Amino acid sequence: MDSYHEPIRDIAHLGHVELLTPKPDESLRFFKDILGMEEAGRAGQSVYLRGWGQYERYCMKLTESKQPGIGHTALRTYSPQALERRYAAIEKSGYGIGWTDGDIGHGKSYRFMDPDGHQMEIYFEAEKYQAPEHLRPALKNQPQKYTGKGVGVRQLDHINYLAQKVEPNSQFMQDALGLRVSEQIVLDNGTHAGSWLYAGQKSYELVYTLDATNRRGRLHHITFCVDSWDDLMRAANIYVENDIVIEGGPAKHAIQQTLFLYCFEPGGNRIELATGGYFIFAPDWETVTWTQAERAKGQAWRTPTIPSFHTYGTPVVEE
Amino acid sequence: MDSYHEPIRDIAHLGHVELLTPKPDESLRFFKDILGMEEAGRAGQSVYLRGWGQYERYCMKLTESKQPGIGHTALRTYSPQALERRYAAIEKSGYGIGWTDGDIGHGKSYRFMDPDGHQMEIYFEAEKYQAPEHLRPALKNQPQKYTGKGVGVRQLDHINYLAQKVEPNSQFMQDALGLRVSEQIVLDNGTHAGSWLYAGQKSYELVYTLDATNRRGRLHHITFCVDSWDDLMRAANIYVENDIVIEGGPAKHAIQQTLFLYCFEPGGNRIELATGGYFIFAPDWETVTWTQAERAKGQAWRTPTIPSFHTYGTPVVEE
Amino acid sequence: MDSYHEPIRDIAHLGHVELLTPKPDESLRFFKDILGMEEAGRAGQSVYLRGWGQYERYCMKLTESKQPGIGHTALRTYSPQALERRYAAIEKSGYGIGWTDGDIGHGKSYRFMDPDGHQMEIYFEAEKYQAPEHLRPALKNQPQKYTGKGVGVRQLDHINYLAQKVEPNSQFMQDALGLRVSEQIVLDNGTHAGSWLYAGQKSYELVYTLDATNRRGRLHHITFCVDSWDDLMRAANIYVENDIVIEGGPAKHAIQQTLFLYCFEPGGNRIELATGGYFIFAPDWETVTWTQAERAKGQAWRTPTIPSFHTYGTPVVEE
Amino acid sequence: MDSYHEPIRDIAHLGHVELLTPKPDESLRFFKDILGMEEAGRAGQSVYLRGWGQYERYCMKLTESKQPGIGHTALRTYSPQALERRYAAIEKSGYGIGWTDGDIGHGKSYRFMDPDGHQMEIYFEAEKYQAPEHLRPALKNQPQKYTGKGVGVRQLDHINYLAQKVEPNSQFMQDALGLRVSEQIVLDNGTHAGSWLYAGQKSYELVYTLDATNRRGRLHHITFCVDSWDDLMRAANIYVENDIVIEGGPAKHAIQQTLFLYCFEPGGNRIELATGGYFIFAPDWETVTWTQAERAKGQAWRTPTIPSFHTYGTPVVEE
Repeated sequence: MDSYHEPIRDIAHLGHVELLTPKPDESLRFFKDILGMEEAGRAGQSVYLRGWGQYERYCMKLTESKQPGIGHTALRTYSPQALERRYAAIEKSGYGIGWTDGDIGHGKSYRFMDPDGHQMEIYFEAEKYQAPEHLRPALKNQPQKYTGKGVGVRQLDHINYLAQKVEPNSQFMQDALGLRVSEQIVLDNGTHAGSWLYAGQKSYELVYTLDATNRRGRLHHITFCVDSWDDLMRAANIYVENDIVIEGGPAKHAIQQTLFLYCFEPGGNRIELATGGYFIFAPDWETVTWTQAERAKGQAWRTPTIPSFHTYGTPVVEE
Repeated sequence: MDSYHEPIRDIAHLGHVELLTPKPDESLRFFKDILGMEEAGRAGQSVYLRGWGQYERYCMKLTESKQPGIGHTALRTYSPQALERRYAAIEKSGYGIGWTDGDIGHGKSYRFMDPDGHQMEIYFEAEKYQAPEHLRPALKNQPQKYTGKGVGVRQLDHINYLAQKVEPNSQFMQDALGLRVSEQIVLDNGTHAGSWLYAGQKSYELVYTLDATNRRGRLHHITFCVDSWDDLMRAANIYVENDIVIEGGPAKHAIQQTLFLYCFEPGGNRIELATGGYFIFAPDWETVTWTQAERAKGQAWRTPTIPSFHTYGTPVVEE
Repeated sequence: MDSYHEPIRDIAHLGHVELLTPKPDESLRFFKDILGMEEAGRAGQSVYLRGWGQYERYCMKLTESKQPGIGHTALRTYSPQALERRYAAIEKSGYGIGWTDGDIGHGKSYRFMDPDGHQMEIYFEAEKYQAPEHLRPALKNQPQKYTGKGVGVRQLDHINYLAQKVEPNSQFMQDALGLRVSEQIVLDNGTHAGSWLYAGQKSYELVYTLDATNRRGRLHHITFCVDSWDDLMRAANIYVENDIVIEGGPAKHAIQQTLFLYCFEPGGNRIELATGGYFIFAPDWETVTWTQAERAKGQAWRTPTIPSFHTYGTPVVEE
Repeated sequence: MDSYHEPIRDIAHLGHVELLTPKPDESLRFFKDILGMEEAGRAGQSVYLRGWGQYERYCMKLTESKQPGIGHTALRTYSPQALERRYAAIEKSGYGIGWTDGDIGHGKSYRFMDPDGHQMEIYFEAEKYQAPEHLRPALKNQPQKYTGKGVGVRQLDHINYLAQKVEPNSQFMQDALGLRVSEQIVLDNGTHAGSWLYAGQKSYELVYTLDATNRRGRLHHITFCVDSWDDLMRAANIYVENDIVIEGGPAKHAIQQTLFLYCFEPGGNRIELATGGYFIFAPDWETVTWTQAERAKGQAWRTPTIPSFHTYGTPVVEE
């Protein structure tokens, strides 16, 4: 028992993602009018957006680009010391890039790549969101007014990358950042087909799944959370009323047990809304491994997985 | 069995109500921005408003007035012949007023008063709502787009009048209009304290409850329906975020078992949102009578009824 | 206007169905333990079952049989006079069979067949359910205690027949029984592929859809209603925990907008749980007609319809 | 920045509570038949009970006693080393009692008292629940089958103690255990009236509120979590059907924003069901302080707090 390995807990949570879109105006309208997000700043070709329940200034930087896909992903550390420790570990891994002076909403950050080539950064100093008059909430323990406009997403939930190989990326996140694997898929030939990584009690914040097209650096989807199964139904109705293409759901994932709804935003990126699932209270959680046969059973309610779900990612690969 | 009395079923449903407000701009903002209703016309000092699920052009005429309260209530008949039959019966009752040429959205109507002095009309010819381009629904069996703005009420649900005496009003509705009583409250001294009247399978559309101030012609509340218990929670959150005063709920009525949420619109009228309850399939439904003792137990979950609920109505009576 | 055709409204509602099962014990366990229904009588090879919200004694007669499928369907009329009128009309149609002395829970009934060969009966005299001590409800306007066991279905909702031809069956129901069509599917070649019939404000109680196997007298499914979208999720979880095969859903139908969940009971019959949809308030409702192209778009949220949905019925046809 | 104080995170979560009841049979029936919990062991005068979503063997030890109230509360540490560190800190505080050999489901524990006299223990070694055949779940990432019986609570959520003084108890939990305060009430005279303490991302697991009767060691309530607002409605219906007295709710707390429902179990203890609220992602969360005036506004939707809520606790104090 003395040899029990105390866990590293230096990453606090997923902070924000930069999403790339070739249709910035239509994408912005989707996130603001359909998802009900609020603008929290603009700079260059980027607009910063937030959900009503988020304590930081924003959770998404929407940036104009030739192709849809993911720009960078930012993780907040638990302390300045934790930032230094993770910096040292990443530097040692050889995947480090260097320090930045920060961006709107947060201080200096350390940039790096995961083995698959997705850009990332870690930071500690963060601006706490101060709502302007028209977005001031009724309850002081809530960062922003719930406006009742559109879907009304609470905040960024997680990001799911596509990767040429899942295992080295998952291993890097475990070794260099101290994340842990709550669930994974291991195929009969030993290939890891999916890895769900967590930092705190939320059971996943970063996910790697296999890219069937064998490309690198692509995005499968980003996810925003809502509060209920009813919110997912309401969102599906709002999507249909506004010609937003639903890819799948509302339904329930077998892995993680999250309730989900997938659509494509006008720029082409897959966007998930999620709620439910479970929290990890056990400090000694044992990774749940799904076999190929178990995976083939489909989602929780035996819903077959949509074919495009296994191949589509951004940037789009023309076959 | 040959002597079984076949029911009159000449009234199809509650069509619309005219609500009076001394603060027309604030009231209009409440119904449009908070409840998410759409404008369907303007005339004189009135704005016509509708919910997304309603087949007629509007369900509420909001009219500027010195005092809040109820203008008139309109019921649609099942056929032109039914309109003539009900006209004849009302005329005979002595409460009739006369025919009108109709209004925006409906043809000629016959006006009358209930014994307590609430203005009413019956009509048959009605305009079916044609949604303009920006409100066109995705599904052709739905009259209007669900916009995702604010509470998003579906349609008018029922109206609850205050009356000096409940029984004669309820009896008039049964005799002259052919409505039936699904539930009622009868106090120990024999006084009828509440009567819930229905026309079709919906278990109530008109309600009379006792006016504790002994006035006549007052309004207790009008009600719009939403689709779920979750919608009531969402509405309560939207109310609080927008300084709309909640009087009671979300909770569940013992009588009718409807889930409810009460607030006051800026003009002072009590507005209920409701969902749930039951439908009356039995053609030989027997009125459910609640005694004084049963009534004293509070709402379905033993929630004590709010004191203002027993006294407040519009126009407001200063004690 | 004088020539306006006043509607016949002689049928009050769908009363009960007789479901046939080759596995009576397993089917009974499904309806009692999984759906949470209560026994309300036994006779011969049949068990009578009920949902908590139903005013009549039972809504399903479960009968042992060599094959799964539908026994008979019973409709309650609005009055004894209405029963006589419908008897006369059916007799005239040539589809009549004759009077019965009644069954547990209801008085004399008139038996007939629809053109496709499904057995039916109409009756008026009905026993109102009297709950035994252990099933007595807390609220007097509710026929039975909600026990909290399993899914907890409220009552029978509708029945969907398969038919070799849809149109003559739908027309018979309109002419002889006075039902009306709320929605229908008409293919490009003019074939009617589906007809949804209603009696009161509930937008459908009997449905005919085309039998792709060209057989007669088969059942597509029977449906019980629950109260919410959350209840459907809970039911899906309960199904999966108990190895009940889900065929589709929870999702939303485009036609009728009902939220649904399909499974197969152990005897092989398809069972739907449903909630939501809309009520028909308009006395002059115009049938909504879906074209082949509109139908091909899938369910409300663009969910593709499950292939088995178009072919499977009971009795099962081996191809 | 170098001087940033890195947080202690040695407590993983609330493990279980021992609840005392003078009516062991009735209490047991409540927890099993109404809340839907499962037995996970018996010893002496105690029965061990669990919710379907819990990874440890049980979350409540129900013990026969002359009086209702709380026996002991157990917290699991993050590691064996964390257990040693907390043992050392508690020992130093003077509130330590000593080591036990453990109990059903967990290894050795260190017992202590909080300043108000509530018994507590910390432990690390814990048995992971292995479901017997009839409780085996369909999905391997779930510890136990969801049986669909009664309310169906997922797991223990938090405990709320009454204390003669709030502040010294809250301070002890911060200093000796490393818990942090997410929200608190500070009255105008400086008295702390409530303190909500958290260990991980769950925003509270231990709560102290002021005992209006000036007693020590009493319990205000224990709370189990369910998954949705709909589950709370369903629970309220189940309570009423089974003569369980509801004290308040379903409604929404202003503090913590949790959706709640309070009742009394047959032994007299107050039991809360909860869902919703928020998660604490910020490592530098700043305690939210509610003033006396803010507190007086009632719950989130302005629901007035029930008077008994301020005075009733167990053991009951006769005034």
